[in-house]
Amino acid sequence: MFFNFLPKEYSFFDLLEKQTFFATEAAKALKAVVANGAVSEEGLKKLQDIEHEGDEVTHTILEQLDKTFITPIDREDIHALAKEIDDIIDMTCTIVSRMKVYKITRKDKYLIEFADIIEESINGVVCAIKGMRNMKNVKTIYMACVEVNRLENVGDKKRDQALSDLFENEKDAIEIIKWKEIYQEAETILDICEDVTNVVESILVKNA
Amino acid sequence: MFFNFLPKEYSFFDLLEKQTFFATEAAKALKAVVANGAVSEEGLKKLQDIEHEGDEVTHTILEQLDKTFITPIDREDIHALAKEIDDIIDMTCTIVSRMKVYKITRKDKYLIEFADIIEESINGVVCAIKGMRNMKNVKTIYMACVEVNRLENVGDKKRDQALSDLFENEKDAIEIIKWKEIYQEAETILDICEDVTNVVESILVKNA
Amino acid sequence: MFFNFLPKEYSFFDLLEKQTFFATEAAKALKAVVANGAVSEEGLKKLQDIEHEGDEVTHTILEQLDKTFITPIDREDIHALAKEIDDIIDMTCTIVSRMKVYKITRKDKYLIEFADIIEESINGVVCAIKGMRNMKNVKTIYMACVEVNRLENVGDKKRDQALSDLFENEKDAIEIIKWKEIYQEAETILDICEDVTNVVESILVKNA
Repeated sequence: MFFNFLPKEYSFFDLLEKQTFFATEAAKALKAVVANGAVSEEGLKKLQDIEHEGDEVTHTILEQLDKTFITPIDREDIHALAKEIDDIIDMTCTIVSRMKVYKITRKDKYLIEFADIIEESINGVVCAIKGMRNMKNVKTIYMACVEVNRLENVGDKKRDQALSDLFENEKDAIEIIKWKEIYQEAETILDICEDVTNVVESILVKNA
Repeated sequence: MFFNFLPKEYSFFDLLEKQTFFATEAAKALKAVVANGAVSEEGLKKLQDIEHEGDEVTHTILEQLDKTFITPIDREDIHALAKEIDDIIDMTCTIVSRMKVYKITRKDKYLIEFADIIEESINGVVCAIKGMRNMKNVKTIYMACVEVNRLENVGDKKRDQALSDLFENEKDAIEIIKWKEIYQEAETILDICEDVTNVVESILVKNA
Repeated sequence: MFFNFLPKEYSFFDLLEKQTFFATEAAKALKAVVANGAVSEEGLKKLQDIEHEGDEVTHTILEQLDKTFITPIDREDIHALAKEIDDIIDMTCTIVSRMKVYKITRKDKYLIEFADIIEESINGVVCAIKGMRNMKNVKTIYMACVEVNRLENVGDKKRDQALSDLFENEKDAIEIIKWKEIYQEAETILDICEDVTNVVESILVKNA
C-alpha cells in the first residue's frame, strides 16, 4: 500500500512546482517583450512554447488526479491549483499575443511596471507552492500568500492609474481599446495569483 | 459533540446574512452615487469600506468552512454562496471605481434604473438567505428566488436597450467604451444574484 | 434497489443528449443569421426559443441531480457538463442578440467561418456526449475530443487573424468595438466546447 501511494503523492508537488517554473519563465519572457516595446516573431514564439510545455504539465496533473485514489492534499485543491497556474501562463501569453495583433511598438511605463509586479507575484506563488511539500513551513508559506495578496492590491491601483491616464491623455479611441484590454489582462494575472494563494491558505487551515 | 457542532452550524447562517447586509449597503451606496451622477472621493471611499468589511466576513466564512467538519448545508454550497455574495459587493464597487476613473459626471437614466433593479435583486437575495435558517419557509424562499430570476431577465432587456440607445445616439467612441463597460457590469451583478438563488434552490431540492 | 436507480441513470444521458440537440439547433440558427448578414426579428426569436428550451433541460438535469443519490458518472461531472452545454447555447444566443443591438447588416467572412467551426465543434460535443452511454466506445469518444481540441486552436488563430484585419483596416473605432466583441464571443464558444470535452476525457480516465 505504502509503496503504491507514496510516489504519486510526491509527484503532485513535483508537477505543481514544474508548472510554477513555466509561470516564472512566462513572466521573464513578458518582461523582455515589454522592455523592448514591440513583439518580435521569436518573442511570441517563446511564450507560445512555454504555454505549450505548461499545458502538458497541467494535463499530466489532471490525468494523474483522475487515476489516483488517495491524494496528499484535497483532490479539488490540486485541481484548482493546476487550473489556476495554467491560467497564469495562458494570460501572460494572451497579453503578448494581443500586443502582436495590435501592432504595439512603444514601450509603456505602466506595462513595464505591471510586468515587474507580475514577476514578483509569481515568485510568491512559487514560494507558496514549494512550501507545501513540508507543512512545517507554515510561516514562510503564509508570508508568501500575504505578499501575493499585497501585490494584487498594488496591481488594482496600478490599473486604475493606468486607465485614468489613458482616458485623460489618449485621444485616439482605437488606442484606448487596445491598451484598456492589455492593462486589464495584466491585472487579471495578479488576481489569478491571488486565487492560487487563497487555495494554498485554505489547504493550510485544513491541515492545521 | 452536540455542543461542539451546534454553534458553528448556526454561525454560517449568521455570517451569510452579515454578508448580504454589506451587499445591501453596497447597493444603497451605488444608488446614491448614480443619483448624483458623479463620484465623490467620499462616495468611492464608502464603497471601498463596505467592500473591505464584506471581504472580512467572506474570509471568516471560508476559514470556518475549512475548520469545520460537519456543516448545516453542503460545504460546497456554503462556499459558492460566500464567493458569489462577495462578488456582488466587489462588482458594485468596481462600477463606482470605474465611474471615477472615467470621470463620469452625468446622471444616466439607464444606470439609475439598473441601481434600482440591483437593489431589488439584492433584497431578494437577502430574503432567500435569511429563509434558509428555517427550511419550513420553502414558499417564501422559493418566491424570492423567482423574483431574483425575473429581475435578471429585466436586467438583460435593460442592458440591450441601454446598449442600443448608446450605439445609436452616442457618436464619441470613447464615451461608448466607458458606458458599454458600466452597463455590462451592472447587468453582471444581476447575473450573480441569480447564481446565488440557483444555489439556494439547489439546497432546497436537496433538503426536500 | 436496481429498479430505483436504473431509470435515473439512463435519463442523465438522455437529458445531456437533449441539451446537445439544442446546442446543434443554436449553431444552425447562428449559421443562418451570419449567412444573411443581418438579424431579423424572427432570427433572434428563434435563437431565444432554443435558449429557453435548452434552459429547461439544464434546469431538469440540475434538479434531478439534487434529487438523485447515486449517479452513473460523478455528480460534479454531470453538473459541469450541463452548465457548459448551457453556456454554449447562451453564448450563441448572445452573439445574435449583440448583432441585433449593434445593427449589424453586413456579411462578415470571419464570422461566417466561425459559425462553421462552431457547428463542427458542437458536432464533436454531440459525439462525445452520445459516446458516454457506452464506455466501450472509448476510441470514438476520444477522437471527438481531439477534434474539438483541434477546432479550438483553429478558432484561436481565426480570432487573431480577424482582430489583426479589423485593427488594420477598420478606421471607425465604434465598428471595432462591435466586431471585437463578436469575434471574441465566437471564440469563447469554442473554448467552452473544449471545456466540455475536457470533462468527458476526465470521465474516461476515471472509468478506465
